[in-house]
Amino acid sequence: MPHAAYEYIAGGAADEITLRWNREAFDALALRPRVLVDIERIDTSVELFGRRLAFPVLLAPTAFHRLVHSEGEVETARGASAGEALFVVSSLSTRRVEDISRATTQPWWFQLFDIGRRRREFLTELLETLNAVGCNGLVVTADAPVTGARNRSERAHFSLPDDLETPYYPDRTARKQVGGLPVSGSSTWADLAWLRSKTGLPIMLKGVLHEEDAKLAVKAGMDGIIVSNHGGRELDTVPATITVLPRVVKAVGKRVPVLLDGGVRRGTDVMKALALGARAVLIGRPYLYGLSVGGAPGVARVLEILRGEFEMALKLSGRRTLAEIDRSVILRT
Amino acid sequence: MPHAAYEYIAGGAADEITLRWNREAFDALALRPRVLVDIERIDTSVELFGRRLAFPVLLAPTAFHRLVHSEGEVETARGASAGEALFVVSSLSTRRVEDISRATTQPWWFQLFDIGRRRREFLTELLETLNAVGCNGLVVTADAPVTGARNRSERAHFSLPDDLETPYYPDRTARKQVGGLPVSGSSTWADLAWLRSKTGLPIMLKGVLHEEDAKLAVKAGMDGIIVSNHGGRELDTVPATITVLPRVVKAVGKRVPVLLDGGVRRGTDVMKALALGARAVLIGRPYLYGLSVGGAPGVARVLEILRGEFEMALKLSGRRTLAEIDRSVILRT
Amino acid sequence: MPHAAYEYIAGGAADEITLRWNREAFDALALRPRVLVDIERIDTSVELFGRRLAFPVLLAPTAFHRLVHSEGEVETARGASAGEALFVVSSLSTRRVEDISRATTQPWWFQLFDIGRRRREFLTELLETLNAVGCNGLVVTADAPVTGARNRSERAHFSLPDDLETPYYPDRTARKQVGGLPVSGSSTWADLAWLRSKTGLPIMLKGVLHEEDAKLAVKAGMDGIIVSNHGGRELDTVPATITVLPRVVKAVGKRVPVLLDGGVRRGTDVMKALALGARAVLIGRPYLYGLSVGGAPGVARVLEILRGEFEMALKLSGRRTLAEIDRSVILRT
Amino acid sequence: MPHAAYEYIAGGAADEITLRWNREAFDALALRPRVLVDIERIDTSVELFGRRLAFPVLLAPTAFHRLVHSEGEVETARGASAGEALFVVSSLSTRRVEDISRATTQPWWFQLFDIGRRRREFLTELLETLNAVGCNGLVVTADAPVTGARNRSERAHFSLPDDLETPYYPDRTARKQVGGLPVSGSSTWADLAWLRSKTGLPIMLKGVLHEEDAKLAVKAGMDGIIVSNHGGRELDTVPATITVLPRVVKAVGKRVPVLLDGGVRRGTDVMKALALGARAVLIGRPYLYGLSVGGAPGVARVLEILRGEFEMALKLSGRRTLAEIDRSVILRT
Repeated sequence: MPHAAYEYIAGGAADEITLRWNREAFDALALRPRVLVDIERIDTSVELFGRRLAFPVLLAPTAFHRLVHSEGEVETARGASAGEALFVVSSLSTRRVEDISRATTQPWWFQLFDIGRRRREFLTELLETLNAVGCNGLVVTADAPVTGARNRSERAHFSLPDDLETPYYPDRTARKQVGGLPVSGSSTWADLAWLRSKTGLPIMLKGVLHEEDAKLAVKAGMDGIIVSNHGGRELDTVPATITVLPRVVKAVGKRVPVLLDGGVRRGTDVMKALALGARAVLIGRPYLYGLSVGGAPGVARVLEILRGEFEMALKLSGRRTLAEIDRSVILRT
Repeated sequence: MPHAAYEYIAGGAADEITLRWNREAFDALALRPRVLVDIERIDTSVELFGRRLAFPVLLAPTAFHRLVHSEGEVETARGASAGEALFVVSSLSTRRVEDISRATTQPWWFQLFDIGRRRREFLTELLETLNAVGCNGLVVTADAPVTGARNRSERAHFSLPDDLETPYYPDRTARKQVGGLPVSGSSTWADLAWLRSKTGLPIMLKGVLHEEDAKLAVKAGMDGIIVSNHGGRELDTVPATITVLPRVVKAVGKRVPVLLDGGVRRGTDVMKALALGARAVLIGRPYLYGLSVGGAPGVARVLEILRGEFEMALKLSGRRTLAEIDRSVILRT
Repeated sequence: MPHAAYEYIAGGAADEITLRWNREAFDALALRPRVLVDIERIDTSVELFGRRLAFPVLLAPTAFHRLVHSEGEVETARGASAGEALFVVSSLSTRRVEDISRATTQPWWFQLFDIGRRRREFLTELLETLNAVGCNGLVVTADAPVTGARNRSERAHFSLPDDLETPYYPDRTARKQVGGLPVSGSSTWADLAWLRSKTGLPIMLKGVLHEEDAKLAVKAGMDGIIVSNHGGRELDTVPATITVLPRVVKAVGKRVPVLLDGGVRRGTDVMKALALGARAVLIGRPYLYGLSVGGAPGVARVLEILRGEFEMALKLSGRRTLAEIDRSVILRT
Repeated sequence: MPHAAYEYIAGGAADEITLRWNREAFDALALRPRVLVDIERIDTSVELFGRRLAFPVLLAPTAFHRLVHSEGEVETARGASAGEALFVVSSLSTRRVEDISRATTQPWWFQLFDIGRRRREFLTELLETLNAVGCNGLVVTADAPVTGARNRSERAHFSLPDDLETPYYPDRTARKQVGGLPVSGSSTWADLAWLRSKTGLPIMLKGVLHEEDAKLAVKAGMDGIIVSNHGGRELDTVPATITVLPRVVKAVGKRVPVLLDGGVRRGTDVMKALALGARAVLIGRPYLYGLSVGGAPGVARVLEILRGEFEMALKLSGRRTLAEIDRSVILRT
């Protein structure tokens, strides 16, 4: 991976305070294991929208996989398949969903940035394509109407290669911004209502940090919420996702599942997020590093390590199923 | 910029604890963005004493601009003009206000240190000059009756060049102290009352950290208060300005606007100060670095970056105007 | 000691957060000495299961002593004898208990990992041997049903020498895991009841961090509890032992003694653990370093230093006996 | 100064946690200045046992001044005289009080370690000498019945030169310990009562960290209390002196003055100690560095800097006298 691409992927916004908080907040949570529990048979599987996932870790939508591997998102999908994980394909994918879909035996979702009025024709067509190729869900990213202050990739002089195709974001002029994220500035709750009316697929709203937005999302007919701060890449000094997760979970109740991304690096992090109410978590950077170093087997290996650590965390804390992971896992101070 | 001048500008007093706190206290505040707000049209402007500023960032009074640029404060004024910001000219200016005034299309203020009894003749004359050349406001600095322990610039053997003219502080003997700040030791509330009686210009009291002093300032007829710790250059271990801002705002109510300087480096810092009650903020060192590196365009570029980051912070937190920036922007922990 | 062995011994699990917390939590406790107490005669001895120990520090069970000294656990036993401390022999001992027993004049205990159903024949035989050679107590380790994420020794490519004999854990295939810890996954409270029924020796349950498990242990007829997180080597981000000690002591009351290991490095640490309710503490890594550098005299020297520091802590805090070490020793904040 | 002597002086006990806390606790206290106060005339003087000191900083008793200057304590006394500060001569002085007394125009005190039964003959004689040469007060050090764990000077192989004379601690065998502090182990409240009965000089008890000991000291007829942790050199992890000062002051009320040493390095530290109830403070290491580098003028310069910073702190916080330094100087958080 070229240095500039690494800086683009690894970096966060501005002073990278949120990037740091995402990790520190997980590390600060202490676990309370129980002992002498019979843990010969444990079950890490979880149900999500009627499907059972082998373990509660998904591949988050991330942009431009061909920056780090020549096969791009198709290779990632193969890794997701081998690693038994659901892959959320980004709108900034460098491969077509027809090819991605064929590469995985696992369910997969598609992520959308800009769902504004101007894009309705494009989106209508896209939804038809997604249905045709068997997409299992949609993720609407709400926290990036403009691109954050990506000072670190600016300093590394990162820019997208001119010949990098992004079939679901074709406008190369707009892409000339750092990172090439679309600037919509105008997706609104009304746009979300329109999208909801156009598809029967499960839709998750991603980028929620405020409990009031979580309530609005449920009211808007969302099927799930993803507590996310865009990996610390958008507005710096927003809180760690694990910090606000309990408020969002409390606001949403049991009406829809709440997922979380941001800083998940260890099996114990997965357990902590579940203990505080998440149904599952997503990882981003870790699988991109796996993809870069080892292609699909690299992606699968990252998933295997995290799954193994999660199983270990269950056993070492004396829990056998996800139902047994509740707040009692966390030390109250 | 010579190393010693850099140490003089960048340094704080004694162990630079307040200097550090000014930054840490901003960084510790977490933001709570809202999503899916229509942010196509935002407005960053703010009203101050009947004038509308394009965005809520002013250039704080800082000494001796000819240390870093041959044109001194005149060049700064050109940058303020290009960057659409109000410039507060220091009593330790190395250029005359007649020349500074001509260089900017923006409103500008003048700052006074010592308003003691001995200086009344000088001040009376100065007020006439300021009126004649169109000065729009006065700032009285209250937190520097003596110069702080500038150990860092002492270690760098900083001293003012003998030929550096300071038309509003002509006594070169007194200037032989480090940094050349005047030692008055005697400006009092009575002196402020005298100044109030001599001018119709808006007067702001700068250097207030205590809510009781803020109340006294309002009672003394001040038009505004600037919460400041002199950039951590006077008494070390006084609190970060953002830490005491809420107490001062609470004490003052809506009677006069409260401004703040000290540690503002990011658009998110501007938003946090406003969320805690500031009408606007001032920056010091950043624009001096801009002036040193790039003259007026350098000053303008610093303002442009901060303005852009502030706009980005508005959009990414789902706020469209300054009126929408209230305490709800900050995460309560 | 080879570098890889050092990494295996010194390292903790995963990100070594618990390893760090074990030390930080001791360091954060402040002491409140009293002055002008007559401390000419002090007494550091403590009673445990009918025997009097010279001072409240034991040698914790640690694996594979022949990794660091050719005589292995026999040499450690000689050091324990010289240093007047009780030695807890690990199930992963590289020497036989017959030889270890002969090498010390002090009481000694034996530690068990896996007490599952499959091992009952082996354990029955082992208990007979232990009785025959004069073992004075048993420790059941409950916090390691699987081996933790030993990333640090993995990175150092640590592996056990093929010819390293472990008479109480003979299965070399299983040993091929990092560190060679047995994977049982199935010791339960029922297994503990079986063990309790088979021996009259005092049994301590080691690895307890939760007060509910402490209560269950008392109910299961345990003679003592060892608050331990396996030296931060099993599940990362479990709390420091000194952090949870007070809860465990409160839950257990005076029914059985509570011991602690994890991070004890200074005489003041020993005093802090006793002040918060521990009867005695165990050290692990420090005596392995002594064994590595100086054999039995090295072990004895480590004990002598800690004993001397503990005496010094008593004198400098104005306490003469262990009975005088109570909560008043710790500053409440 | 030889490196080993530097390590002996600069170092603290064990892990130097208390040494660090002494500084950190001062730095963590934030000041609340007032502005526009008339500070043309300020008064830093303070009354102590009927004498007026020019400013509230004393020279603490420290051992073996000939380690750092050939003239030893006589040179220090000259510096105290030039710097207008009271000097507390240590029992481990390398010069006789007759010579020290002649070298200063300021009041001076003498410090005692061991006041046990065995030393009564020696002490009776010493008290006569002290009276004869005009000693103005006594300090009994209570926190060092044995020497702390001076790991840092051990590592530097520090030892006292054989020919270093210590007229008030003549036993060279005992001195062979690190630092040569006497080991008494037996000074008690009864011994203090004996001392009280033998002299009319003011006696201060030094080394008090517990409010109950402070009360006992008042009851024992002490004229003052010095809150001290022996510069972090005795029992590690005892609290910073400024942390426990308020409790001691509260326990003592206005019955006797409370002094403090430990970590005072800045004029703001002096102000903070006074704000929390100290009548005055003592410094140790700083003046030894001054003595080492510059003899008596070095000692005087250290005092001058601290006095200047204290005056600056008064002016910059809008206080004119020590009576105006109360709790309102400190920010409550």
